[in-house]
Amino acid sequence: MKRETMVNAFDPEQAAGLDPDDLSLIERRGRVLGPAYRLFYQEPLHITKGEGVWLYDGSGRKYLDAYNNVASLGHCHPKVVEAVTRQLGTLNTHTRYLHEGIVTYAESLLATMPESLGHVMFTCTGSEANDLALRVARSYTGRQGVIVTKLAYHGLTEAVAEISPSLGDFVPRGPRVRLIPAPNALFVPPAEQGAKLAADLAQAIAEMRAGGIEPAAFIVDTIFSSDGLYPDPAGFLKPAADLIRAEGGLFIADEVQPGFARTGEAFWGFQRHGLSPDLVTMGKPMGNGFPMAGVAIRPEIVSEFGAKARYFNTFGGNPVAAAAGLAVLQVIRDEGLQENAREVGGFLKQGLADLTAEREDIGHLRGAGLFLAVECVTERETNAPNAALAGHIVNHLRRNGVLISATGPGANILKIRPPLVLGRAEAQIFLDAVEMALAAA
Amino acid sequence: MKRETMVNAFDPEQAAGLDPDDLSLIERRGRVLGPAYRLFYQEPLHITKGEGVWLYDGSGRKYLDAYNNVASLGHCHPKVVEAVTRQLGTLNTHTRYLHEGIVTYAESLLATMPESLGHVMFTCTGSEANDLALRVARSYTGRQGVIVTKLAYHGLTEAVAEISPSLGDFVPRGPRVRLIPAPNALFVPPAEQGAKLAADLAQAIAEMRAGGIEPAAFIVDTIFSSDGLYPDPAGFLKPAADLIRAEGGLFIADEVQPGFARTGEAFWGFQRHGLSPDLVTMGKPMGNGFPMAGVAIRPEIVSEFGAKARYFNTFGGNPVAAAAGLAVLQVIRDEGLQENAREVGGFLKQGLADLTAEREDIGHLRGAGLFLAVECVTERETNAPNAALAGHIVNHLRRNGVLISATGPGANILKIRPPLVLGRAEAQIFLDAVEMALAAA
Repeated sequence: MKRETMVNAFDPEQAAGLDPDDLSLIERRGRVLGPAYRLFYQEPLHITKGEGVWLYDGSGRKYLDAYNNVASLGHCHPKVVEAVTRQLGTLNTHTRYLHEGIVTYAESLLATMPESLGHVMFTCTGSEANDLALRVARSYTGRQGVIVTKLAYHGLTEAVAEISPSLGDFVPRGPRVRLIPAPNALFVPPAEQGAKLAADLAQAIAEMRAGGIEPAAFIVDTIFSSDGLYPDPAGFLKPAADLIRAEGGLFIADEVQPGFARTGEAFWGFQRHGLSPDLVTMGKPMGNGFPMAGVAIRPEIVSEFGAKARYFNTFGGNPVAAAAGLAVLQVIRDEGLQENAREVGGFLKQGLADLTAEREDIGHLRGAGLFLAVECVTERETNAPNAALAGHIVNHLRRNGVLISATGPGANILKIRPPLVLGRAEAQIFLDAVEMALAAA
Repeated sequence: MKRETMVNAFDPEQAAGLDPDDLSLIERRGRVLGPAYRLFYQEPLHITKGEGVWLYDGSGRKYLDAYNNVASLGHCHPKVVEAVTRQLGTLNTHTRYLHEGIVTYAESLLATMPESLGHVMFTCTGSEANDLALRVARSYTGRQGVIVTKLAYHGLTEAVAEISPSLGDFVPRGPRVRLIPAPNALFVPPAEQGAKLAADLAQAIAEMRAGGIEPAAFIVDTIFSSDGLYPDPAGFLKPAADLIRAEGGLFIADEVQPGFARTGEAFWGFQRHGLSPDLVTMGKPMGNGFPMAGVAIRPEIVSEFGAKARYFNTFGGNPVAAAAGLAVLQVIRDEGLQENAREVGGFLKQGLADLTAEREDIGHLRGAGLFLAVECVTERETNAPNAALAGHIVNHLRRNGVLISATGPGANILKIRPPLVLGRAEAQIFLDAVEMALAAA
């Protein structure tokens, strides 16, 4: 469980009052899956159906999903289901036979990126993508050091868990990893955000070198999701990206969260900052639920690794993944989802601004496209984190049929991330539910 | 590219004579995917359809797939396609909502294993499963050392590539990894195989300790696929598994290759050796092509890690994966595929024995169920590896519509691993093609 979910995790000791069938399923589940498998919400949801922005439980009650960034085109999008189904029944094999699908998909995907990113390699998960990006970066630079932000999350393999401090201190973090403060919208003036991030990076590099380790890469989620969501000001990431290169390291953009048009103004998060990364990793929404991920790379960086490391991902880039990925790109384009994310995201942001402008316990509202954050504080004077308020809102919304979560170092930042197909009417339903939750606070 | 594929990789410099459309696709492919993506065979196959044990190219020519261990129930098995399709159109979300599917599947999967393996955790790939198993083993034992066989392959993340010497010396292998010789059917008498493996393990542990590192785990593919396939004698693995535990480490069975009934006599490879591992990892055939994998674990080993490491795999164990996995288990049972693997595997082995008994250039034939190996040698006197003969047979078979590969330290061991639905008539087609390839050698 990442820190962001701690305000809304089910506590088995408070199970009284739950549906007996659900309780029995929870008990069976705990027995076979063990302690790593948590459930969202004080009253867990037993979901049996998904369609568009809606999830349904067994009784037919529906919930507005304003949190799931995997089913980014909406749950069970018929075009993706159809593409996957057709290919599953035709051919599903690996990349050591020739197949049109993976080539066409790779070309379409790279066409959304700067020309310098000439190659793409396919994996099954964002974790595998980040793990591969680190392997390539370390191999190319001959260096080991990696710098990340304080509450970064980059995945679950040993190598990327090591650079994911949001997992907490139980997960080992070796000497080759250095943390820097994430951007901060409350205590750092916007105009200083870029210079501060670069200065913090410079200090981390110096400290790393003092310990005898050279920096291989600076990797960031370009919208800083688990740190608390920091999109602004556009461009603030560039000085740090320039710096790591000047120091002989690589800049890796982790686009698992902001990628595939979520931010509205751009297809990729790094584009907001006027950057062209050395490596770009992507995952979650890439197949709208089909397990697939990848890394786009400047060709010269991967030439030796590609030739010598014998990298082969059994399921990665197979014909079914290629069909899913291609369908996702087509739907984003044909349904104008980037434009929709910008427009409905703007409506949502304005609505939240209207609801919270007068409140002393809301410290900040920010976001880009359909990825928004609302910072709950005790009072605006101090802007101290208010996790209790965030927890109240998350669970109040859930009881009223709207699903979100909270994140950030103080677990006080509401994370709002609906599917990109969210319409204005559904956005209004969301705003009405927030209004009620705030009124009941 | 793993060593095992080196005898049958496409060499772009020998592309003359290929179909112009294929050449153009190969060129586009190289441009976007880069140097890591190899193609099987001197004449690459452009496959467009799969059904049962058959793969088809665009012209409708069919190839008997005697190599693909992912589509273990046969390509595009209708029951699995149907289960995945139905669930894809209903709900595809993560494990933080309650869902019946993952619980039912976990119960069914664990029912095939010793009772001591009480929990299962789901990932998307065998690499992620092995990476998780190592993280759990290192966390539980508080130790770092891992012992593997000389040509082991356990996956592609940084941590499991480190324990995959079959990837070659370009991939870093740190001081926490020790290699021991794999079993050897030609130079070690069967009765001594178990004692030798345990003695080699004891020596590796001693050397590791001399370097200040304690052993956390001994991990093996229980049929030693990339080492050259060593199933016999049944039970030979037990002394080594007992030893690692006596030394305070854990025994991890990597069942990505032998698992899910391939060996005919047992559902899992470790059962052949009368073992109950501490952790069991599984992958490739688990979803008959749907990207899914997992780790079964003794509950006490994962209790602290599960509670504290915040492990959450976005796609792992989702409702679609659960539906695919459950369909695979049902098909194996309903179609009697374990029994078929034993019976048709026996027929195939006897046929190969008849074809090779008199040949001076075939040193050994071995296997279990539908996983067979034929060792090509220069002469039986010396049993020196004959990679040229193996390469000849692999490519001759491919030209005659039968697909296999070669493996082992000398790249001289034919690896025969057809889908479990192989019938006797198809096995006879295979044998006839081998007879022709041998006659042309």
